[in-house]
Amino acid sequence: MPYDMPVIGLTLDRASAVPIQQQLFERLREMILCYDLEKGTELPSTRALAGAIGVSRNTVSWAYERLAAERYIATRPGAPARVTLEPAFREERVRPEGALPAPASALRTGAGLMRGHRTPRAIAERPGFWPFVPDLRQFPFKTWHRMVARHLQMSRHDDLTYDQPAGLPDLRALIAQNLRLSRGVVCHPHQVVITNGGQAALDVIFRLILKRGDMVWMEEPGYTGALAAILAAGATAAPLPVGPKEGWDLSHPHLVPPKAIYVTPSCQQPFCRVMPLAQRHWISDYARRTDAWIVEDDFDNEFLPPRTIIPAVQRLDGGQRSFYVGTFAKTMFPALRIGYAVVPEAFADDMAEATFISGHMASLPMQAALLDFIRQGHFARHMTKMRRVYDARKQRLLSLVQSTLHPWLEPLPTCVGLALPTLMRLPDVPVSEEARRQGLRIPPISGRYHQSSPRQGLLLGFCAMTEPELLANVATLRRILERAA
Amino acid sequence: MPYDMPVIGLTLDRASAVPIQQQLFERLREMILCYDLEKGTELPSTRALAGAIGVSRNTVSWAYERLAAERYIATRPGAPARVTLEPAFREERVRPEGALPAPASALRTGAGLMRGHRTPRAIAERPGFWPFVPDLRQFPFKTWHRMVARHLQMSRHDDLTYDQPAGLPDLRALIAQNLRLSRGVVCHPHQVVITNGGQAALDVIFRLILKRGDMVWMEEPGYTGALAAILAAGATAAPLPVGPKEGWDLSHPHLVPPKAIYVTPSCQQPFCRVMPLAQRHWISDYARRTDAWIVEDDFDNEFLPPRTIIPAVQRLDGGQRSFYVGTFAKTMFPALRIGYAVVPEAFADDMAEATFISGHMASLPMQAALLDFIRQGHFARHMTKMRRVYDARKQRLLSLVQSTLHPWLEPLPTCVGLALPTLMRLPDVPVSEEARRQGLRIPPISGRYHQSSPRQGLLLGFCAMTEPELLANVATLRRILERAA
Repeated sequence: MPYDMPVIGLTLDRASAVPIQQQLFERLREMILCYDLEKGTELPSTRALAGAIGVSRNTVSWAYERLAAERYIATRPGAPARVTLEPAFREERVRPEGALPAPASALRTGAGLMRGHRTPRAIAERPGFWPFVPDLRQFPFKTWHRMVARHLQMSRHDDLTYDQPAGLPDLRALIAQNLRLSRGVVCHPHQVVITNGGQAALDVIFRLILKRGDMVWMEEPGYTGALAAILAAGATAAPLPVGPKEGWDLSHPHLVPPKAIYVTPSCQQPFCRVMPLAQRHWISDYARRTDAWIVEDDFDNEFLPPRTIIPAVQRLDGGQRSFYVGTFAKTMFPALRIGYAVVPEAFADDMAEATFISGHMASLPMQAALLDFIRQGHFARHMTKMRRVYDARKQRLLSLVQSTLHPWLEPLPTCVGLALPTLMRLPDVPVSEEARRQGLRIPPISGRYHQSSPRQGLLLGFCAMTEPELLANVATLRRILERAA
Repeated sequence: MPYDMPVIGLTLDRASAVPIQQQLFERLREMILCYDLEKGTELPSTRALAGAIGVSRNTVSWAYERLAAERYIATRPGAPARVTLEPAFREERVRPEGALPAPASALRTGAGLMRGHRTPRAIAERPGFWPFVPDLRQFPFKTWHRMVARHLQMSRHDDLTYDQPAGLPDLRALIAQNLRLSRGVVCHPHQVVITNGGQAALDVIFRLILKRGDMVWMEEPGYTGALAAILAAGATAAPLPVGPKEGWDLSHPHLVPPKAIYVTPSCQQPFCRVMPLAQRHWISDYARRTDAWIVEDDFDNEFLPPRTIIPAVQRLDGGQRSFYVGTFAKTMFPALRIGYAVVPEAFADDMAEATFISGHMASLPMQAALLDFIRQGHFARHMTKMRRVYDARKQRLLSLVQSTLHPWLEPLPTCVGLALPTLMRLPDVPVSEEARRQGLRIPPISGRYHQSSPRQGLLLGFCAMTEPELLANVATLRRILERAA
């Protein structure tokens, strides 16, 4: 009973011929038997329970004594009564007779797509080859915790978050300023909306611009989370083909123009390519001609090598029909749960309100801590360091793949970002599954295809592995590939 | 330039006849002029910028010197260059020529409804009569910060949140157990999904069960946030009338049965009534007969007086067609951003995935801290204390209204929860607006009506006022009412 002052959600029938204490005993026993109160659960004191349900303390004592006599609970003077019965079906799910099936809905369709596609929990402890996972061992958590602690202390005035659904004004201004400089994004702070992670931003945007039956161009292969959000908004997706070496294929636009175009131009998933400037212009022009929206998920732009940095698509249309999405999950860490969107001026007010009513607001104390972390230069220092670390690890992985795994895996060496895509002739799913059995999680390239015949390959991450870990994992992968071949 | 290693999102045209340094100068000036870099903004060092965009350091120095000569920036040896120009239209929003209007969408319709209905920011510092605002001065923040700090320190393994979209298993189990005991809710931990606040839970639920054009019974007057979420899911709302003294009027069911029924049976908004058991049975039976879902927003159930505690509607149908929603915003504090839903078994898996793809996951370190806070008894202690504090303040407010404001305001004294609804003959909006001008925010009862002719009154909060604050605010309100009469 540790949660709260206990009050049993039951009404005793005072008009019944069954004595109150007997009723109480039966209801408590029912709860222990049916509602799987776990062994060890504390019951409320007789006084607390008596006060809560409006009976005398003697009534409760009587019921407790009977429960104890029948071994449902154990009582000891001066200590709380505790449940002793190990419920027979404690691990069973409640499946009432004739349970209703869940109906179809757009959100449910999108949700179903995601199953098996989320980053597995085991990755937190052994990232291995899982791609796009930052090296948390190198994050300055001590400094970060100092910032958070400070804002938790000072958070009383921030505790009513409801009037800043778009986020802390100073953080929005700082993000706007940086995006103008680093990505050429055309925006005023008013257009920046901070959300509970990047996926939340995608969710609100697609729901704002799409109606049921609308069609969206979606990169194929592409990021499953975005496709899920498109389907969840009730829309359909048409493939915008992307080749491992060829990049985006814009030569066969669909006969029906799309309502929106989703692209990840800084680091395409899974092929980690950068979209050339000419293609960005093409998309911007095409969207203008066909009156389509652009959703630019600028995933991993922070890790682009200097020479590949190209202005955001958003800049090319002056921010009129582009939604620009970013996240701090990779530059900071995923549990921060802070992402953002830059929306066209006409959407700014609605986006803020939509963030409120859909419950997507991000924690204000965390936003305040992030603002400090950036302003005091910790973010820039961390990024400078991690770019160097990740670059060295990528080069090392590339040379190991070329020297050790080359017969099987063909790396795509010109690719950018926090993963190394590789192609192979073997079917990738059995290799990925065998790797998983050996404690090594590697997503198959084919898993990123949703609408067409997939290429086979492995998407290798490298960010969070030290040299010994990398060597051991490469050796394991080599054995798996040898056996599979 | 504090955000990150600066890289200008621009490409210099190396084939152009214009010298590179001149191009760089012009682009930087354009950014200062057009993209409202604020006065005082640090520019990157010449070395950093040169490396980032692939030019020589001399090129950058030349551009900086020209910018300094023309007073756009100020340079000093050993210090970063800073923007000195006060942009002419710094506070202006970017309004590109021919800006596109935002199209209609269900989410936008819902969002529009919310404007002006959120808790204003000023409330954080002066809660006054604003209802349902916990007294943050009495929250044990020191203890809470200790819990959070501990989990921030230990959070590395939790930092990849993506595999627990439904929340921390232990917290889900604890919530399930408490709801079984305190509300009679029929559930297994598997059916509990933790979300980024209660509004997020409403958003996911309505999107899972509703299709465009579906109709929902919505309390009238009622909670605007729920109505906004219903409209945002593409559905329409039909009024389920609630009277200030009469309570829910279930005597005129609509000819068309609803797809879902939304109720706040523990503390109806704004009349703070508890739904009697017989009406709960009626709703449960009616939903079964018409194959409708029930969304039970059990708002403020934690503050019910013992004698008014009635089992949740969810219990009456065995959890088959009921979605039960709760939040820690009132028992803890709003910025915590942790809410939860109990969903029917058939929805449990989908609800977890839907929470992921819609970006509604709550922070795992915060969940872990909350779990500790509850397990160590701090939550129960805080609740015991606050129930006493709020009860005393409510009695005090009631007696002051009866003695001082009675000619104008008629309190509804049998009501429960963290607000005192009052009726009045005067129009409530002008009184609320005059109060606002005098620094006192009080929502008018009429603002909770969305579809029918409103009653007039004031919804008075009391939780966060000390005795002197209460006396001063009652005196102010009395002057306002005297003048308005």
